[in-house]
Amino acid sequence: MTDKPISRFPVPALKDLPEDIAARITTVQEKSGFIPNVFLVLAHRPDEFRAFMAYHDALMDKPGNITKAEREMIVVATSTANQCQYCVIAHGAILRVRAKNPLIADQVAINYRKADITPRQKAMIDFAMKVSAAAYEVGDADFDVLKSHGFDEEDIWDITAISAFFGMSNRLANVTSMRPNDEFYTLGRG
Amino acid sequence: MTDKPISRFPVPALKDLPEDIAARITTVQEKSGFIPNVFLVLAHRPDEFRAFMAYHDALMDKPGNITKAEREMIVVATSTANQCQYCVIAHGAILRVRAKNPLIADQVAINYRKADITPRQKAMIDFAMKVSAAAYEVGDADFDVLKSHGFDEEDIWDITAISAFFGMSNRLANVTSMRPNDEFYTLGRG
Amino acid sequence: MTDKPISRFPVPALKDLPEDIAARITTVQEKSGFIPNVFLVLAHRPDEFRAFMAYHDALMDKPGNITKAEREMIVVATSTANQCQYCVIAHGAILRVRAKNPLIADQVAINYRKADITPRQKAMIDFAMKVSAAAYEVGDADFDVLKSHGFDEEDIWDITAISAFFGMSNRLANVTSMRPNDEFYTLGRG
Amino acid sequence: MTDKPISRFPVPALKDLPEDIAARITTVQEKSGFIPNVFLVLAHRPDEFRAFMAYHDALMDKPGNITKAEREMIVVATSTANQCQYCVIAHGAILRVRAKNPLIADQVAINYRKADITPRQKAMIDFAMKVSAAAYEVGDADFDVLKSHGFDEEDIWDITAISAFFGMSNRLANVTSMRPNDEFYTLGRG
Amino acid sequence: MTDKPISRFPVPALKDLPEDIAARITTVQEKSGFIPNVFLVLAHRPDEFRAFMAYHDALMDKPGNITKAEREMIVVATSTANQCQYCVIAHGAILRVRAKNPLIADQVAINYRKADITPRQKAMIDFAMKVSAAAYEVGDADFDVLKSHGFDEEDIWDITAISAFFGMSNRLANVTSMRPNDEFYTLGRG
Amino acid sequence: MTDKPISRFPVPALKDLPEDIAARITTVQEKSGFIPNVFLVLAHRPDEFRAFMAYHDALMDKPGNITKAEREMIVVATSTANQCQYCVIAHGAILRVRAKNPLIADQVAINYRKADITPRQKAMIDFAMKVSAAAYEVGDADFDVLKSHGFDEEDIWDITAISAFFGMSNRLANVTSMRPNDEFYTLGRG
Repeated sequence: MTDKPISRFPVPALKDLPEDIAARITTVQEKSGFIPNVFLVLAHRPDEFRAFMAYHDALMDKPGNITKAEREMIVVATSTANQCQYCVIAHGAILRVRAKNPLIADQVAINYRKADITPRQKAMIDFAMKVSAAAYEVGDADFDVLKSHGFDEEDIWDITAISAFFGMSNRLANVTSMRPNDEFYTLGRG
Repeated sequence: MTDKPISRFPVPALKDLPEDIAARITTVQEKSGFIPNVFLVLAHRPDEFRAFMAYHDALMDKPGNITKAEREMIVVATSTANQCQYCVIAHGAILRVRAKNPLIADQVAINYRKADITPRQKAMIDFAMKVSAAAYEVGDADFDVLKSHGFDEEDIWDITAISAFFGMSNRLANVTSMRPNDEFYTLGRG
Repeated sequence: MTDKPISRFPVPALKDLPEDIAARITTVQEKSGFIPNVFLVLAHRPDEFRAFMAYHDALMDKPGNITKAEREMIVVATSTANQCQYCVIAHGAILRVRAKNPLIADQVAINYRKADITPRQKAMIDFAMKVSAAAYEVGDADFDVLKSHGFDEEDIWDITAISAFFGMSNRLANVTSMRPNDEFYTLGRG
Repeated sequence: MTDKPISRFPVPALKDLPEDIAARITTVQEKSGFIPNVFLVLAHRPDEFRAFMAYHDALMDKPGNITKAEREMIVVATSTANQCQYCVIAHGAILRVRAKNPLIADQVAINYRKADITPRQKAMIDFAMKVSAAAYEVGDADFDVLKSHGFDEEDIWDITAISAFFGMSNRLANVTSMRPNDEFYTLGRG
Repeated sequence: MTDKPISRFPVPALKDLPEDIAARITTVQEKSGFIPNVFLVLAHRPDEFRAFMAYHDALMDKPGNITKAEREMIVVATSTANQCQYCVIAHGAILRVRAKNPLIADQVAINYRKADITPRQKAMIDFAMKVSAAAYEVGDADFDVLKSHGFDEEDIWDITAISAFFGMSNRLANVTSMRPNDEFYTLGRG
Repeated sequence: MTDKPISRFPVPALKDLPEDIAARITTVQEKSGFIPNVFLVLAHRPDEFRAFMAYHDALMDKPGNITKAEREMIVVATSTANQCQYCVIAHGAILRVRAKNPLIADQVAINYRKADITPRQKAMIDFAMKVSAAAYEVGDADFDVLKSHGFDEEDIWDITAISAFFGMSNRLANVTSMRPNDEFYTLGRG
């Protein structure tokens, strides 16, 4: 454990939070064994917290052709490009757990082109990286590449929305200096 | 009016939408005289729609030291950097209306450093642009500049969150090829 | 109207200008109903004024396969990339008038890839943007793309020269803080 | 001598050129001992040729606080950034001759920060490079730096206009594949 | 363990290597418990191997004011910017071991500005990153910042040389697709 | 000759150098007629000097399909991109000598795409430039292009290693402000 600040903004105590937010945090704590700092940092703004979490769940928990591990790949690769400490560490941990692969998160973070993933997954990340860096240049040719790997239009919306949502999250985490929990560093390393 | 497609994804008919979404759209239509296309395009994904709108309202409708016109300046400047047709056109219109200034939106979009705005507003946009382009480099020196212009930490959270949220929105609009309504182009031009 | 300075450099009075320059300015004023500020700002340097206008006319008024509206598209798109307030506002107005289309200038400025223009026109702007950003990389492959859209070598010279000339103009306008006339903002919006 | 093409566009024969252009070319040939290729390449378009040369002379031959050698430094440094074969080779030769220094052109081209020039000249080139790469960011602070080195506002116009004009020239030379004369490579090397 | 290829080039068998190289590899294997792949990949070119290792040792094993952990910080930060799988993973492990800190390598890799390191160490990495990305812009002002943190000129040579040497190493590793040993991922995670 | 400093670090006297280093320097002096400054600047660090020279010789003197002139082309093109005064001037001279072509070094430096070299050589430099700027993106497609020009895998290792080694060298030269000898400027100009 560490006593370093987890945000440059005030962090509310659980007992001072609106009931629904406190309940959500308690649930995640019970499931994970600790409270991921993103919950405490964003709870400083309850309305934004609720919208953020609702958006997150809509993108990451919905069923679809893209596996949960693959969604985390998108998060890890784009968050590295955005140099987001919290997102790479926390979602790297989730990726290791979801993929049951202790090496994959570091590989995807540093240079996904060299990672132990499929060509289809590399195409998915290529697209997510382009959405992150130059969405204004995305066009039919990019859609065609994804389709040649078996993705359909709904999958492409998913990849886009995950890349875009975590791009927002990366910026919030960097400006708040959101600190990843120490627990995430070793989770899923086997 | 135009018959050009407003999205490369399916656009639901109002009557097929969940009641809460249809109600929100009806309200905005009554208020604006038309349905801004963002509502129809995002309604393709009801859960994401709800989270998006809740987040939007939490950031743009809350009270605070940053005026509504100033929030729109942030949107217009960062959306131009992200080359987002929908956001620049639609929020440019809102900026003209809120600032009661027919020139300001184009000025802020093209080169805010030359716009008819205050040094405080330029500092605010400088920060928003840095959040948009390189949030990982934001640090104490950037906070100090904003504070020297009278912004406090909560204001800085607002600027950050607005820049980050519309960065997400810009990416969604570019990949969906979200088309701005013709009405926005002339709104507020006096 | 506004009383904001139109240049950070001295602006000559009409009566103090050499006769040929005053005459040209009077002509444009009679035709447009106002004096576009570029004439007054550049008149600070009569010899440069004359060369600039001669170059402008040689490129923009000559006959050729590229319509006058298309030439303005090149100006608007590249001037936005160069963040030139004067050129985007003034030539955006001319583009709306020449194309008889109130939406086109804003579309071409923000993201021409999403504008209501033909694939041929998008290819033309792609090339102009490459000339503007990385002319050193232009090669046969770029010429081939334009030729596949029906442009010939003389057309390519035109596109190049217009992109290059307005790149110069954009830099002059930014350093002089050349202010667009208020009249341009609404011209051609129908 | 070489028989390599000097332009990818048609190059007119002297005898087919309008009289004024042929006269100018004959004059430069008598003075230099050869015809710099830029004259022949641009003569393909007589009206543009005339405007180009008038602009060039207005900027490079006028009196002022910036020496002729210093003007060539601006050309060489910015043309290297634009990777313009013709301009770096031809104006490098002129710079060597004007500065009576056989090393200076290569130094200024490769990394002017390490060249045997004064701090005032480095500040001048810093500004010219910013005009070339990001004129939209030029502001009062940049003017202040130049003024602290003894430049006045008119000098700053000169630096700006030279950087901007040769930025245009660089783009024309790159797209036309304008070939520098072999003579330039060794001129002024002592 | 993995049976994935460790290089896209042929990898020599230990028994086929020149004696001095085989001896060095045997020594490192005895010390580490495994052979770091960089030794096997580079041994494809014995002369380059010897020069590489001699250079490495001259920079990383020499005494000086910069601790061995700090040298590894330079490697990890610059190698992340160069997206080098091998160097970030392998030197991240060494950094954790040398700094006796299981969190530090990931922190330095993702965004060293947010890492649990001293302002002096951040200044050191700022400089190393500038050497890596834009050494041509390094000047007195950069030296002054380092000196204000207690570094002397010899330290600055060290930082420069380490950044430059691993920049070379990053490029070799990326083109050879050098694979980090699985062992490195968990080393020093405590 | 010049009395300008050749390094911002101390430069050892020949007589104070270790015998092997002094011997190497004497040899090069006898061969060239002068001591290239890189030898004196790097001799400040004898161990690094030895490794640097060993590496250099391993890459530049070994036999192979890539001629010595071609290796120098790689050095000149990538060193220009890194704005390295010493490397462009010194290796430009060597390139002129090796290629027996007084124009080639300046051409390759400024814009190799326009140089009087073969398509095969341009492909070689394209690859070297990508290794220099974005080695993390190098993949099979890049190898395939080189192979279509007759390069084999060992040649590609050579191109990579030369680009990477001189990238290191460029950074050392820029931070030490290594000054090219005046002699290099005119060597091989015919």
